[in-house]
Amino acid sequence: MKKTHITHDSLLLILLVAATFFFTSSSATSRTTDSNKKPLVPCKKLDLYFHDVLYDGHNAANATSSIVASPVGGSGTRTALSPSFHFGDVIVFDDPVTLDKNIHSKPVGRAQGSYIFDAKSTYSVWLGFAFVLNSTDYKGCITFAGAEPVTLKTRDVPVVGGTGDFFMHRGIATTSDEVVDGHLCVRVQIRFYECY
Amino acid sequence: MKKTHITHDSLLLILLVAATFFFTSSSATSRTTDSNKKPLVPCKKLDLYFHDVLYDGHNAANATSSIVASPVGGSGTRTALSPSFHFGDVIVFDDPVTLDKNIHSKPVGRAQGSYIFDAKSTYSVWLGFAFVLNSTDYKGCITFAGAEPVTLKTRDVPVVGGTGDFFMHRGIATTSDEVVDGHLCVRVQIRFYECY
Amino acid sequence: MKKTHITHDSLLLILLVAATFFFTSSSATSRTTDSNKKPLVPCKKLDLYFHDVLYDGHNAANATSSIVASPVGGSGTRTALSPSFHFGDVIVFDDPVTLDKNIHSKPVGRAQGSYIFDAKSTYSVWLGFAFVLNSTDYKGCITFAGAEPVTLKTRDVPVVGGTGDFFMHRGIATTSDEVVDGHLCVRVQIRFYECY
Repeated sequence: MKKTHITHDSLLLILLVAATFFFTSSSATSRTTDSNKKPLVPCKKLDLYFHDVLYDGHNAANATSSIVASPVGGSGTRTALSPSFHFGDVIVFDDPVTLDKNIHSKPVGRAQGSYIFDAKSTYSVWLGFAFVLNSTDYKGCITFAGAEPVTLKTRDVPVVGGTGDFFMHRGIATTSDEVVDGHLCVRVQIRFYECY
Repeated sequence: MKKTHITHDSLLLILLVAATFFFTSSSATSRTTDSNKKPLVPCKKLDLYFHDVLYDGHNAANATSSIVASPVGGSGTRTALSPSFHFGDVIVFDDPVTLDKNIHSKPVGRAQGSYIFDAKSTYSVWLGFAFVLNSTDYKGCITFAGAEPVTLKTRDVPVVGGTGDFFMHRGIATTSDEVVDGHLCVRVQIRFYECY
Repeated sequence: MKKTHITHDSLLLILLVAATFFFTSSSATSRTTDSNKKPLVPCKKLDLYFHDVLYDGHNAANATSSIVASPVGGSGTRTALSPSFHFGDVIVFDDPVTLDKNIHSKPVGRAQGSYIFDAKSTYSVWLGFAFVLNSTDYKGCITFAGAEPVTLKTRDVPVVGGTGDFFMHRGIATTSDEVVDGHLCVRVQIRFYECY
């Protein structure tokens, strides 16, 4: 019986050590190397719109953005975008952020930063800007940085950081254009995959 | 006694499997979805100052930054900031970083990059710059990217990456202005929440 | 014998609880505070080249980048870089990305964004750009943001986000210059340490 008894304990030992390895390993690999697959369920979502009205020399009252730099041969007056896909034009913006596509809706914050046309044979921009939100629902900033190939119906842009309610967050923003009489309205659907 | 003995082993089994589940589970959830709450204790802290002296056409010897772009109606000479909250002005800087608020203290590195005034009805900037540190204590770069609403006493700015001693780091920098005779001195308190 | 038996079980208990703690702790600390050491093995690697030909007023057919802004006293014509380490010059680029150092190789994508010379006493740039890849092997964007001290033989630049095949990725890019007849060829070795 002693033999059997030892075997019984050994079985327990094997089972428990195996269990220990199994569960801890599956946990550890969630942060490691080539099998580094994390869950694709967002930890937070946000669906917002911002509205851009570029200064053209005649719309000072309504304009929310301005050309501030352009290449030689480009927008010398800084009141019209350059020919050739606007390549090299740098635009600074302070755009209202709203909950729907109506530019006159109550803003919940501002989209502030710059976009740079950076393609020579199509329309594409580099985005470096932040949502600065100050509503009853959300207070804090969200940093966007990356390429936005604006000819595509929807574009994915990295969200690389945040503050306040978005402390340390990361995610992906899917942008698309809404046709709204005369001004550029961009829908931004943010899916955060790292929250705190 | 055999029955008792089995029960004893069973108790061990239950306790140990429970312990295995408890500890591994608490570890695993630290990286997942909607209960994605991570510890708010910084893994590294840094408290530094940088000093900005904007070129005004007469201070070439001391200046550390220059206006390089501005909107129409803005700083045509690039020796003074634009009216209307400096909206659209782009400033490139190469500022000394020190351990205290004295601009003449031995630099431990440089703050290099650009800031862009991007608000039309207040003072606010987009920051895209790096601390390039080269001291006995720290060697490496830290990337900052985000909104800095400079009218607030303290502002939080995302730290989105790093190299060297700050390899892959992320965190939040809290900035505030120190009044030091005639130049802009910014205190930067960095709290890293992801280290490697 | 009962005493011995209990001791045997107790030994098992100690060993297994110790094992449980040991393995789960090492897993848990990979995501926490001051002992936050993660594995340094990349989860993905990428070795690419991009090619930059700056517009000089005479090479419109070949040029891939343009000076769009510069400080007072700098590149007034925007066809030549400023004196004094090009400080303040802003260059927008749309550079081909290839698998080798031959600028005429079939591009696998574009490097698009801007670089800004931001040092007053050496050559150094701020990089804010993306690889926009569209090959059979890789489809997606990679965001780079940080300091690149270009006088160093190799430089490390933070990779702060991505989309598509590089969804949510982070890592470090090591850049170096290749001497190729007349144009700037930059080798970019990316090591991703966070994949999804």
